[in-house]
Amino acid sequence: MEHDVTLGVDIGGTNTKLGFVDRSGKCLASAALPTNAHEPARKLVARLHAAAEETYRPLRGSHTLRGIGVGAPNANYYRGTVENPPNLKWKGVVNLASLIRTYYDVPVAVTNDANAAALGEMLYGAAKGMKDFIVITLGTGLGSGIVAGGNLVYGADGFAGELGHTTVDPRGRECGCGRRGCLETYASATGICRTVHELLGERRDASVLGAIAPSVLTSRMITDAALKGDPIAREAFEITGRILGMKLADAVAHTSPEAIILLGGLANAGSLIFRPTKKYLEKNLLNIFRNKVKLLPSGLKDENTAVLGASALIWNELMKTGTPPRR
Amino acid sequence: MEHDVTLGVDIGGTNTKLGFVDRSGKCLASAALPTNAHEPARKLVARLHAAAEETYRPLRGSHTLRGIGVGAPNANYYRGTVENPPNLKWKGVVNLASLIRTYYDVPVAVTNDANAAALGEMLYGAAKGMKDFIVITLGTGLGSGIVAGGNLVYGADGFAGELGHTTVDPRGRECGCGRRGCLETYASATGICRTVHELLGERRDASVLGAIAPSVLTSRMITDAALKGDPIAREAFEITGRILGMKLADAVAHTSPEAIILLGGLANAGSLIFRPTKKYLEKNLLNIFRNKVKLLPSGLKDENTAVLGASALIWNELMKTGTPPRR
Repeated sequence: MEHDVTLGVDIGGTNTKLGFVDRSGKCLASAALPTNAHEPARKLVARLHAAAEETYRPLRGSHTLRGIGVGAPNANYYRGTVENPPNLKWKGVVNLASLIRTYYDVPVAVTNDANAAALGEMLYGAAKGMKDFIVITLGTGLGSGIVAGGNLVYGADGFAGELGHTTVDPRGRECGCGRRGCLETYASATGICRTVHELLGERRDASVLGAIAPSVLTSRMITDAALKGDPIAREAFEITGRILGMKLADAVAHTSPEAIILLGGLANAGSLIFRPTKKYLEKNLLNIFRNKVKLLPSGLKDENTAVLGASALIWNELMKTGTPPRR
Repeated sequence: MEHDVTLGVDIGGTNTKLGFVDRSGKCLASAALPTNAHEPARKLVARLHAAAEETYRPLRGSHTLRGIGVGAPNANYYRGTVENPPNLKWKGVVNLASLIRTYYDVPVAVTNDANAAALGEMLYGAAKGMKDFIVITLGTGLGSGIVAGGNLVYGADGFAGELGHTTVDPRGRECGCGRRGCLETYASATGICRTVHELLGERRDASVLGAIAPSVLTSRMITDAALKGDPIAREAFEITGRILGMKLADAVAHTSPEAIILLGGLANAGSLIFRPTKKYLEKNLLNIFRNKVKLLPSGLKDENTAVLGASALIWNELMKTGTPPRR
């Protein structure tokens, strides 16, 4: 398998990333394209194929593609489908694995992006050697992947690990899923923007964020403002960490992980988000769990964390059984 | 193993039950004693031993004791300990397995009572053939046991499955664990009593429960009143189901179970608790989980559900490996 590669694909609400990854977790070639969330899935897959062919060109001849792993919102590992993804306009059930196999004659496995990230951290990253941990991705939404006893928890129907849609407040913010008060409406890149809007309405503090239209505000802008001491931006991180920490304490009560790993755009804010999250996690933990659970950043140096995770979906099977999953 | 038995012990906040169970899940002889929660553990173990010896008498000679499984609050499967149990006055870390082995030269395994119940349902009851399910015990507290991919989730430290201490409301009711608003302060036999007290303060409805002192009120009395149409009692069940259903929707988002099994005193209220719990579970579920998750009563006909579960802790190992766990 020395010159084998797998293709990892991460479909996010905004961007889709792809990369060809070797068994050591090294991304040999990568690319990104806009997801165009309003487009049907087959258009994205066609553009994805074109981008992947282009990216694969320098590896062709010297490397063998062994399989394609895809992380996508609401993706179902058992069925190869994506079902009513909250941040994409795909309608109903899309058989993403079948769509991709119209272009490639290799095994294709799909799972939600955070499950893929969890496998990536277990194979190559911060969770190496751990048997119980949770990965939280703080991107457009909040995704999660739970590993218990060394195995990714898929659940009865392949949809386990949807912590972004646990309820913070049943009368809270409207969520893309049609309900109210879901964790991801608070703790995500878009969630912290909503918190800033609310704070700008509530408080009288001067803030550079007051000059930015809500429709163009990003979590990166909030991070930059917080680093400069902006009081609204700092308070937004405090609130985000308070809510995330409280719900992570609930998650610990479910599966008692050794570590929780925070990934994604908002996690890149570093101690701005880790410090309050850790504080409120500890504050809300049942005594038997206190001062035990590590809160860690990604252990993957490569920027393409989610792509590595998606590729790990295939590598995990190849390493366990010698054969990739065929579904 | 035809005449082998295991001893199952269930230590609750109020009563401790024991039973000798064969491999088919039949309880051949059983007994109960008060837990006396204020006593140190060694006194309970001494009384337990005396009661077990008495109960075993008719089986002696014809049966062989293969091991002892114990379900107890905050029990740790990995270490054989009980650590700061919220409903007992045992201080610090008690090595319950060692205490029991001073009386018996057989393997002893401990886990929390709800984990034990989950194994009982998997081996003999409502979860036969299931790989992903959750057991909720509604007793003095609320316990839970999570099975994912066919394995009981113990977590990094053996304490997984503490859904009773997930947070409903951070400014809510005081909990025995020292925090506020834990699920078990609402959804348990004691929780529904507290709900009745609150309702008697809030509402002007006539209720037979108004004649009962809070210190003697039981969930059974509330059940009886609700069956006779008492408005406060019925509303208490509605509220209990609303809160339990909401938090079970969170639990589904974690591990996506095929079924949730409700056990314990309050579950014996039948549709009084199942109907509102199911209603609010469905109402709070993310769309991809709706109308999929079964809400079931115990599948064990024997009254000693928790004892069967504790015995299953040993039988589960004997059936898998031929040898019971030795810790």
